[in-house]
Amino acid sequence: MQKTGKVYLIGAGPGDPDLLTVKALRYLQSAQVVIYDRLVSDEIMALIPPEAVLVPVGKAPKHHMVPQEGINELLVEHAQKAEIIVRLKGGDPFIFGRGSEEAQRLVEAGIPFEVIPGITAAQGCATSLHVPLTHRGLATGVRYVTGHCRNDVPLDLNWQSLADEDTTLVVYMGLAAIEQISRELIAHGMNPEIPVLAISKGTTKDERHVLADLRTAYQVAKQEELKAPTLFIIGEVASFTGQLQVDEHLSAVSGDAVVQVKEAAHG
Amino acid sequence: MQKTGKVYLIGAGPGDPDLLTVKALRYLQSAQVVIYDRLVSDEIMALIPPEAVLVPVGKAPKHHMVPQEGINELLVEHAQKAEIIVRLKGGDPFIFGRGSEEAQRLVEAGIPFEVIPGITAAQGCATSLHVPLTHRGLATGVRYVTGHCRNDVPLDLNWQSLADEDTTLVVYMGLAAIEQISRELIAHGMNPEIPVLAISKGTTKDERHVLADLRTAYQVAKQEELKAPTLFIIGEVASFTGQLQVDEHLSAVSGDAVVQVKEAAHG
Repeated sequence: MQKTGKVYLIGAGPGDPDLLTVKALRYLQSAQVVIYDRLVSDEIMALIPPEAVLVPVGKAPKHHMVPQEGINELLVEHAQKAEIIVRLKGGDPFIFGRGSEEAQRLVEAGIPFEVIPGITAAQGCATSLHVPLTHRGLATGVRYVTGHCRNDVPLDLNWQSLADEDTTLVVYMGLAAIEQISRELIAHGMNPEIPVLAISKGTTKDERHVLADLRTAYQVAKQEELKAPTLFIIGEVASFTGQLQVDEHLSAVSGDAVVQVKEAAHG
Repeated sequence: MQKTGKVYLIGAGPGDPDLLTVKALRYLQSAQVVIYDRLVSDEIMALIPPEAVLVPVGKAPKHHMVPQEGINELLVEHAQKAEIIVRLKGGDPFIFGRGSEEAQRLVEAGIPFEVIPGITAAQGCATSLHVPLTHRGLATGVRYVTGHCRNDVPLDLNWQSLADEDTTLVVYMGLAAIEQISRELIAHGMNPEIPVLAISKGTTKDERHVLADLRTAYQVAKQEELKAPTLFIIGEVASFTGQLQVDEHLSAVSGDAVVQVKEAAHG
């Protein structure tokens, strides 16, 4: 019987290395091979041991360097040669991460694996900007969809279901699709004045955000030249943008407890 | 000007201390005061320094030990006396965590704070049981709602919107409401045979799960005597339950790479 290694499908979270889970950090630091996406931040890549083999399979928007089937085969190949193989993805492997497709291939090949969750972009952006995803009286739930379109084909989503003002709607990879999404939501009865928060490169040092509404979101994101990945938070909770802030000059704080102020785009 | 401490609203994740973020662990280990919920696991509580003041405000189902307004005031009070105050919650503070209500009170009182996200129960359960929340061809998105009912009043949700078979629906705290939820979803057109995975105490040593369908979910959860908190994953992705497994006896594995097998309820 052939001896194989184990594959760790790891969610790297939204970008800030401080938001890795303890378990993710531990396996990242003991990896012999790391097969990683373009969306993983430089700060997180810097945590990988220098002797590890790095295999970029980086998905850029509209440009898959290695197709998914190729990534699946790379995992199998490396598991024949190493003991600890890390497949590192932005966010969470099981939320728009195609981790289950990789797991299916590993099961087929009889290769043991483990999935380690990550803070997904919606959570990273929400906590970074102090905009809750649910809030009593404003949102009874939250919903994630992806705006990623294959070959510029328009999105085919259940717009009637999505146009629910009581649920916070988070659109991942939304830049290419926000024009269609906002038009369809309005056509299906959503209030055009519902607030929309757009966040580019959330939780990283390049984080920028801008507040608009459903009618203007597309124009404003374009005008502000937001770069991918941009996440849109659509719903009444977005009205918290800039509201839950304490002025650091007004509260005398000592020791470790320093208020962090993020650079904000002027909306 | 009065000197105040800083409050860290921290998501403790689903229970496994290994799923804390690096940042959450660091602040937990330097806390002087920890105001914590009942849903935080013993293993995570054990990470708090012994000299820290522990303040339980533990919400048990149908039994709020300290009402939300009381918790808000406790945060303000402790911030007058200590430098690093941690408000520790199960999951993520901004997903059904009421973190934004606490933040509102802190802003009012001029007390600096920071929000640290946590792996939410849906992610913890999904990765623990190898059931993806999205999967090409099965789920274009994922949605979280809570089944928590106030004083046994039935849930008032947008059932038409929720009955979307292309979206994975995750119900938090679902035991009390799953009967109503499954009945309403079927009444609004959802296929009664859509698979439903119920997970009790996910990611902890007491994790148990059972696979049913929308028609039987309530009866099966009752029969198996699942305990709170129980999370329900409703959607085609639940059919992955038990499928993405590699038999540890069939793959010769070395070193650190040992397949972990979780105790599963017999469905």
